[in-house]
Amino acid sequence: MKGFKFAGVHAGIKENGSDLGMILCEKPATAAALFTRNRVVAAPVILGKQTIKKAKCQAVLVNSGNANCFTGTQGLADARATTQMVARTFDIPRDFVMVSSTGVIGAPLPMDKFKTGIPLVKEHINTGTLEDFAQAILTTDTCRKIVSMKGCIDTPQGAKEFSMTGVAKGSGMIRPDMATMLAYVLTDADIGVGDLNSALTRANEKSFNRITVDGDTSTNDTLLCLASGESGVCIRDEASLKVFRDLLEKVCCRLGKMIVKDGEGATKVVQITVKGAKTGQDAFKACEAIAHSNLVKTAIYGEDPNWGRITAAAGRSGAFVDPDRMDLYFEKVPLVIKGCWQGPDAEKKAAGIMKASEINILLDLNLGDETDSFLFCDFSENYVKINADYRS
Amino acid sequence: MKGFKFAGVHAGIKENGSDLGMILCEKPATAAALFTRNRVVAAPVILGKQTIKKAKCQAVLVNSGNANCFTGTQGLADARATTQMVARTFDIPRDFVMVSSTGVIGAPLPMDKFKTGIPLVKEHINTGTLEDFAQAILTTDTCRKIVSMKGCIDTPQGAKEFSMTGVAKGSGMIRPDMATMLAYVLTDADIGVGDLNSALTRANEKSFNRITVDGDTSTNDTLLCLASGESGVCIRDEASLKVFRDLLEKVCCRLGKMIVKDGEGATKVVQITVKGAKTGQDAFKACEAIAHSNLVKTAIYGEDPNWGRITAAAGRSGAFVDPDRMDLYFEKVPLVIKGCWQGPDAEKKAAGIMKASEINILLDLNLGDETDSFLFCDFSENYVKINADYRS
Repeated sequence: MKGFKFAGVHAGIKENGSDLGMILCEKPATAAALFTRNRVVAAPVILGKQTIKKAKCQAVLVNSGNANCFTGTQGLADARATTQMVARTFDIPRDFVMVSSTGVIGAPLPMDKFKTGIPLVKEHINTGTLEDFAQAILTTDTCRKIVSMKGCIDTPQGAKEFSMTGVAKGSGMIRPDMATMLAYVLTDADIGVGDLNSALTRANEKSFNRITVDGDTSTNDTLLCLASGESGVCIRDEASLKVFRDLLEKVCCRLGKMIVKDGEGATKVVQITVKGAKTGQDAFKACEAIAHSNLVKTAIYGEDPNWGRITAAAGRSGAFVDPDRMDLYFEKVPLVIKGCWQGPDAEKKAAGIMKASEINILLDLNLGDETDSFLFCDFSENYVKINADYRS
Repeated sequence: MKGFKFAGVHAGIKENGSDLGMILCEKPATAAALFTRNRVVAAPVILGKQTIKKAKCQAVLVNSGNANCFTGTQGLADARATTQMVARTFDIPRDFVMVSSTGVIGAPLPMDKFKTGIPLVKEHINTGTLEDFAQAILTTDTCRKIVSMKGCIDTPQGAKEFSMTGVAKGSGMIRPDMATMLAYVLTDADIGVGDLNSALTRANEKSFNRITVDGDTSTNDTLLCLASGESGVCIRDEASLKVFRDLLEKVCCRLGKMIVKDGEGATKVVQITVKGAKTGQDAFKACEAIAHSNLVKTAIYGEDPNWGRITAAAGRSGAFVDPDRMDLYFEKVPLVIKGCWQGPDAEKKAAGIMKASEINILLDLNLGDETDSFLFCDFSENYVKINADYRS
């Protein structure tokens, strides 16, 4: 896409594989960002919250393997030092450099690896690809996560196209309020920072704040959107803003789904939709409790349509529910209607549906008009293996 | 203990093993009970809430293998019918019969098994033991859970002793607000129903509401306390009430610990204590988030003193925390002091501590004077295996 360069190199922060990536903008881009709501936040997040106030960004340096979190004042100084190295190496203002880190919490950032790594990034920045960057930011992820889409705006000069590309990492410590998730959305559209901010907040609410892998919120979550304006397509009026917002939401939702699909140990992706809730908050709470229930997640892994665990999770969610009104569907198969189990044949059909790798479950509370939905993955022995052995 | 008889038989509700248990009081006992706060509640809980209003109970019938939950009006009628069978068979008032169920949600109660099972219980009630009852109420539990203790009251006639025995089941669907937990505490003390109720509420708050296995709240949780008065020891004045309350709390805490120890797939029991919180609510929230974190629980299973996950869980708990003030100890070993990691030697020592089957972790927020603590277990591949295959 116009206006952006990429690199991804092995700097030695991780033992193997590439671990240092960069997005470089030819000119300073309009920037908006959202960060984790965890009160324990990593140094790059503390720094990023200050940097983003300027609403301009020209370089993003991301390392995997070390989260630079719980590293105190030294960690913050180290994060600052890396921005300085980038600024000097690429000859751009220090205020326009953002850094992100992901990996093990608590270990000091290995500054020597940055001293040799950043020049290596410079060597590759003119030949590197988006894929190189996407690879360099991964930790326990098993695949790169990239989404590219086009938007089209009607102008007096005819239809004009702009591009949007999202790249993300995340596989564990994923729950609403963002996660150990890093996501970067790049566009060549020309948009003001106010509009970019509100579009990003809205898209995040519909995407990354509606996914969960394991219910833990990370200390490093960052969602950053950079708009280079290089396409010449101006996003100013309501019609073009709608196109931009919808596209951003789509890109974020696809990235979110990729993260859930690549959830640690995951074998299936489930969309739970709760409709008929009295309030939006009730719909959200019921979705969240179901999506976070280890009993629901293990049943899905076992391909067991254990609807009792789903309704019980809704019951403990704090949402107002009436068991005798509940309808529960696996895809189109009704398992429960008005609180009554639909018998072994329905259950057999539902068990068949669960063999798929993507499953839609609908819980209708039949109490009102509010709806919400969540994406989550199942829970396998591999999640335990991955997380019991992560640091050893 | 004076005034109580027990039985446990195989009625065929489960394929194998005993599945129908009874506690029979020679005379109606003073009774107090607490039930699940899940909005989806089982039929025996709906019925039990009505029955307990009389504050008298003479017989408790408990079946395992079927939860009689999400069984609609038929389930309620079935629960009522079983109380009637018990009343007729044992010639006691129907209002004095409590029933509990635990097992699979959604399947109709197999009434024919009760018709043949209750007479079988009668055959065994004069020869049965507490162990027989404790065995009959188990589901995925791997062991019986029984605690027996003595209390001593000073009276003008000298010291007098009374007995207290608790029996419980529970292994999964365990979290605060009670769980798929059934617990019965029996005493031969003579105590008024008001005092019994407040003592039970207090003991529950300190014990069963401070444990978690998997974070799911069951639909069937019941904690029932029966006081026969047969010892002749009267609990009336403040001094004797204190003895009774403390004993009840001890019995409930021991049962709670047994449940966590027998948590599905558990290999270790952890006590997390959060001190130095600004408010009691903050201490509770931080404890709860740590105890429920799958990342913390899998790290403990892997014997990895992954303190970053513990502090991150406290950070997302909603409690007010300041990372730079946190101290974290594994037993007596400081891993973090004022937000600073204490280095690889401390971590090696902590890793050694984690080889034990019981581990104490202390997080000092250094912000105030409030303290709370929680018991939880680790999270192994076996939890997934047990819950993926539960119904198949």
